[in-house]
Amino acid sequence: MPDNVHVIAHPLIKHKLTYMRKKDTSTSSFRALLQEISMLMAYEVTRDLPLASINIETPLAPMEAPVLDGKKIVLVSILRAGNGLLDGMLRIIPSARVGHIGLYRDHETLQPVEYYFKVPGEMSDRNVVVVDPMLATGNSAVAAITRIKDTQPKS
Amino acid sequence: MPDNVHVIAHPLIKHKLTYMRKKDTSTSSFRALLQEISMLMAYEVTRDLPLASINIETPLAPMEAPVLDGKKIVLVSILRAGNGLLDGMLRIIPSARVGHIGLYRDHETLQPVEYYFKVPGEMSDRNVVVVDPMLATGNSAVAAITRIKDTQPKS
Repeated sequence: MPDNVHVIAHPLIKHKLTYMRKKDTSTSSFRALLQEISMLMAYEVTRDLPLASINIETPLAPMEAPVLDGKKIVLVSILRAGNGLLDGMLRIIPSARVGHIGLYRDHETLQPVEYYFKVPGEMSDRNVVVVDPMLATGNSAVAAITRIKDTQPKS
Repeated sequence: MPDNVHVIAHPLIKHKLTYMRKKDTSTSSFRALLQEISMLMAYEVTRDLPLASINIETPLAPMEAPVLDGKKIVLVSILRAGNGLLDGMLRIIPSARVGHIGLYRDHETLQPVEYYFKVPGEMSDRNVVVVDPMLATGNSAVAAITRIKDTQPKS
């Protein structure tokens, strides 16, 4: 497996995935489990975000304290399946900005066609996380990422 | 620092802690940030939970799939401050069982006095996580953990 593919082997994620896979899991439980898994994934995805220092005033004294560097992170959801993951991640990072990409596959050319694209401004100072729960050929994911790279985000 | 003390240096936790420390953070934001930090801590705390295998039926086929081993994990909150952490952790592990320990310090003897103790049954087959956001002398935490050890939990 290539180095830049990271499989999250956390026991809680495995456990919840098992229950999502079960045939007799209700739609409501499935959604709740997906949200819980997304919250756990948010931990891994944001593990290496760079920090900067600011001066703050606490109830006791002034101090220098760490905050995330740069402008707010962007979570870009590939419509529509990405939205299930997006919800859970926003529970952990409620101040994140959000973008959406809509793509479908043209039945004749088999190429992905973009029907929607919306991301926040000032992308050059933002880190982007693309959320999509499904890969088949990976064509849509590649198209989405290429399109986001055109906006020249920080990473 | 001893080996069995684990400091979580995740950038999102550091960032949120900075905002919790700020003097002008509202009570409502403080509570929300505490819940978000608790959700992130739940990831670290459950990282090494042991798994077992069960057979499940998916919509496509039967398969062998991983689930958490043993009976449901117990989150034990030290009253009352532990409850803030408990809420966030239950968002990630909603099926966890819950216990509570109430302790106060006797002003004359300076010893911790237990006024409440309630944990689920079958502790010998359960892993326990004690949640408490504050350490001063650590006397109450030690008393709480000693008391839980008396119930002979799995870990």
